[in-house]
Order: sequence, then structure tokens, then C-alpha cells
Amino acid sequence: MNFKDYIRVIEDFPQPGIRFKDITTLLQNGPVYKEAINYLAELVKDQQIDLIAGPEARGFVVGAPLAYALGVGFVPIRKSGKLPGKTIEADYSLEYGKDKLAVHDDAIKPGQRVLIADDLLATGGTIQTCVSLIEQLGGEVIGSAFMIELTYLNGREKLPAGKNIYTMIQY
Amino acid sequence: MNFKDYIRVIEDFPQPGIRFKDITTLLQNGPVYKEAINYLAELVKDQQIDLIAGPEARGFVVGAPLAYALGVGFVPIRKSGKLPGKTIEADYSLEYGKDKLAVHDDAIKPGQRVLIADDLLATGGTIQTCVSLIEQLGGEVIGSAFMIELTYLNGREKLPAGKNIYTMIQY
Repeated sequence: MNFKDYIRVIEDFPQPGIRFKDITTLLQNGPVYKEAINYLAELVKDQQIDLIAGPEARGFVVGAPLAYALGVGFVPIRKSGKLPGKTIEADYSLEYGKDKLAVHDDAIKPGQRVLIADDLLATGGTIQTCVSLIEQLGGEVIGSAFMIELTYLNGREKLPAGKNIYTMIQY
Repeated sequence: MNFKDYIRVIEDFPQPGIRFKDITTLLQNGPVYKEAINYLAELVKDQQIDLIAGPEARGFVVGAPLAYALGVGFVPIRKSGKLPGKTIEADYSLEYGKDKLAVHDDAIKPGQRVLIADDLLATGGTIQTCVSLIEQLGGEVIGSAFMIELTYLNGREKLPAGKNIYTMIQY
């Protein structure tokens, strides 16, 4: 299946000059969404994953069904102030903008093997912050999985050496 | 399985007096999360669902794996300004606060049978707004599914008569 056929490109969102890769057209197609998640699950299935962590909010639509498919837990990484329990936080910078991400301080046990999942690898800023949060809790980041990689932004180079990067489609 | 054992109650979040039902402790337990989604899938499986729609962001961690389990599409309903394509919007009021929700105007085809999924039924304000958005696009809302219902807030009464309400646990 050519997953790219189901991704819509929106010009100038959220800022002029950005060609936004919109996965909602893929998500709303049941068989294609299922095959996309199965494709990622197949890539990572030998990694003895304990948990999937996904950043709010698009990371949830990749990470949550991937966790379900693999039968492992899901840890939401959220904007500051959204999680109800005690959290640790870290700053991050996006392709466009800046914010803080947070995770519950008891969400990951030391030594648990964690895969990060998100819709898109752009500059890698979000994922770098997720890695830092997970490692602060003693989790072992085994890699990250994305529906889309924007190779021209070189996000791959920001991710820690030796970690696996799994991508479904590349631009 | 007693799913309540895996829900954590956080006092005074996000406001004094609110006993927040935290599902993240359920999500991070792989087998329990999987069984919860399977439980909801079993409840709705005879409804000939075409799409699951879920409001940002916790609705994604219920709706996205439920869509995967059922093999149907997922439509994210998001805060205003987050979706990249052309949207329709509607106001909504929460248990605490006010905001706007949006959906892509081509996300649902007329006549498609849509189930709304969210983590929690509180006052029903969010779901009422989701129903309105889906019906504006010509979708048929067949009901809504929740991990948790706060029965003392009577949200059930705000939802349109004749729609199914599926809940996993009640407080």
C-alpha cells in the first residue's frame, strides 16, 4: 500500500511556507489506518517494548492504537498543566513555536523499555524532549516510530545515537 | 475485571472540589488497557459503525484504539485552530471552562454512522457539541462510548434521546 496516497498536504499551515502533512485523511479510512498501525507494529515487534509514550495530541492517534496492537501500556506526554498527578517537565522547541511537555513522575518504572510514537518527525525537538523526560524517570528509550519523516529537516540527527528510528513514509 | 481498580482519583484537579478521575494509570497497564478497549468494542460491535469521532485529547486515547479494534476510521475533533484543513466549529462548555471545537468539513460523509468516544461523560457539554458538529456534516450519530460516567452530573440527560450510551464504569 502506498500510504502517501492517503496523506493530504495543506499549504501554508500553520505558517506561510509550511506544507503541512495532514494525516486525518489517512485516519478516517478504517482499513488504511489499521494497516498503517500494523505496519509500525511489525517494524517494532521484536524490541520487547514495555510501554509506548506519545506526545499530545497527534502522538496519541499513533501511539495509543500501536500500544493496543502490541498489548503494551501507553504513557501520554502532555502540555504543561494537563496531567492531573505529579509530573516532571521539560522545555521543547518545535518546527514553529515553543512549549513545555510533562509526564507523570510515576508513569514509567526504572528499566522499562519505552518506544516513543508520534505522527511526524520534523526537527526532532519534541522527540528530544520526550527522550529526556523518559530517561529522567529511569526508562530506557529503545527508539521512536513515526508515520511520517520530513527528511529535509534532519530531525534524525537530533535523536540520540544508537536509538532506532522507524518511519512509515518519508518526504 | 474491575476497571475501577486501575483508575486513580486526584483530589482538587483542575479546580478545588473536583475529584479528577485519572485514566493514565489504566492506560499504562498494557493488558488492562487492551481489555478496556475490547470491552467497549464488544458493546458497540453490532452497530454497523463507519467512523469513531473523538474529542481532543483524551478522546483520542479511547477513540483511536477503539477504531483500530473495530477496523473503522477515526475522526479527531479538535480545539479551534489545530486542524489544518477547512473546518466547521461550535462552542462548548465544560464541567469547568469554555472553548470551541472543530472538525474538518470533509471528515464525515452524509449518512455515515458515527460513534463518539471519550474517556469520561461528565456534564455532557463536550459530547453535545460533537453531536452537533457531526450532524452538521450529515453524519448519523449512533451513540457515544466512555470509559467513565459521572452519573451524579446527569450528562446522560443532555445527550439526544434515542442515542445509545455505552459506559465501562460509573461513579
